[in-house]
Amino acid sequence: MREFTDPDVAALVDLAVLVDEIALCIADLGAGAASQAPKSALPLGADGFFLSIAGVVPRLGLAAAKWASYSPAAPGASGLSTSVITVSAVSTGEPLAIVTGMRATHLRTGATAAAVARRWFPGGVDALVLIGFGPTNRAVLEVLEAIGFAIGELRIVVRSSSSARAVQELHPTARVSRDARSASTGAALAISATGSTGPVGDAGLLEPGGAVITLDGLRTWAGYVPADVVDDRGTAGVRPLADAMTSGPVGRKSVVFDIAGSAVADVALAAQLMERADAE
Amino acid sequence: MREFTDPDVAALVDLAVLVDEIALCIADLGAGAASQAPKSALPLGADGFFLSIAGVVPRLGLAAAKWASYSPAAPGASGLSTSVITVSAVSTGEPLAIVTGMRATHLRTGATAAAVARRWFPGGVDALVLIGFGPTNRAVLEVLEAIGFAIGELRIVVRSSSSARAVQELHPTARVSRDARSASTGAALAISATGSTGPVGDAGLLEPGGAVITLDGLRTWAGYVPADVVDDRGTAGVRPLADAMTSGPVGRKSVVFDIAGSAVADVALAAQLMERADAE
Repeated sequence: MREFTDPDVAALVDLAVLVDEIALCIADLGAGAASQAPKSALPLGADGFFLSIAGVVPRLGLAAAKWASYSPAAPGASGLSTSVITVSAVSTGEPLAIVTGMRATHLRTGATAAAVARRWFPGGVDALVLIGFGPTNRAVLEVLEAIGFAIGELRIVVRSSSSARAVQELHPTARVSRDARSASTGAALAISATGSTGPVGDAGLLEPGGAVITLDGLRTWAGYVPADVVDDRGTAGVRPLADAMTSGPVGRKSVVFDIAGSAVADVALAAQLMERADAE
Repeated sequence: MREFTDPDVAALVDLAVLVDEIALCIADLGAGAASQAPKSALPLGADGFFLSIAGVVPRLGLAAAKWASYSPAAPGASGLSTSVITVSAVSTGEPLAIVTGMRATHLRTGATAAAVARRWFPGGVDALVLIGFGPTNRAVLEVLEAIGFAIGELRIVVRSSSSARAVQELHPTARVSRDARSASTGAALAISATGSTGPVGDAGLLEPGGAVITLDGLRTWAGYVPADVVDDRGTAGVRPLADAMTSGPVGRKSVVFDIAGSAVADVALAAQLMERADAE
């Protein structure tokens, strides 16, 4: 079967098109024109897990199932993430391709965050805070730059001083620090992707009407009102992402987007791989 | 990534070893030493579906996720089934291989049925009824023959007279008919795999202590007591397959094994592929 690896994904995916496509897929979900299976998890050793998600987007003619894993490493080191996405035709069920490697997941997660950021702040933001600067938040920044999202000041929060030096060198105009509180104060938008198991951010420090996009779960945030949470996995009693994206921001009300990773975003990315690979 | 196709599966899998391994995996499940995610389904067109199952067997060092589909064809024709199994290492989550094609699913389903048949009737049966003789029940017969399961009279029930003629030619000693009632009467074991949406068999016609193995769901059977059902997917209130396999038959009590297809059976088959491919 055809396999797309990380270099294929890097070569074939147009980030701006991906952001648009993911926004459409989220709208499809909200309108009942696309569907997702509930996420299911299985144990991997003592602290890791396997994860299974799947989605069908008839408009794109494709379905995708992702089988992913995370296994934590020694304290301080980064864990091992894996992912295999199987892409199938919606008309017949026929499997068309697999997508291996983490690049697809990082990009579609970054593109989902960027779609939300653009919807919430169409004119950009005075200050953007990225808490954590691993592959996920690096993808977020890459996508935001690709769609021309205006960022007055970029603040990057990392864990160690050696990371801070390395990141500062790569992003000389950014304000790089290890102090999430100070970085978050008065910012319009904060995006976390840390893998931390406890709070790293305080939503109460953002400016009124500010938004949090958490790519590492609600447990990494404090200082927010549960009623302000929006998520992308249909949790009972929680406002769905599709609904929030349709209505947009209301006044200066704060929102916490708890984005766990949506299977329709995998379909959106797969659609681009299939189309561009066919065209080549 | 390494891919095993139908010919690889046919060449590498030893059916007798597979039956033993599946029995061990079912026991692992019962003992809490293996785990499975709940099956989840998504729509495929008007009448078809995508299906996602996954299992982890630490004893074998492997996990497997299957993304499968079924789309019905015109009435009378057979539908299209597809399957892609992703095999991963349990220690790291690292994806190792994919298994494409339906041969793996047919064989592991046939081997699961054979493991049950051998446990229930260690000395074989006077009469075995196969209702439906598509790829699944053909695999059942192939595995039963591979493990030397003693069958006094083989009765095969098919839908059309043209099928009957073709099957009779391939199995000259079998009693091939289109009459499930007459074929089932007094038989010890009946195994159905038809894809029918209504009853095709009547469990009340079997001999006392007889067993039904339904590979196409409970809806294809009538004449049984719900309390006699055993299944392999942890349905609340239904006796688990692992439990029945441990205790074995009790007196002349009838049992209906509703075997939907277990992810640990996919892991059992994958383990053999990995081991034998490495050895070559």
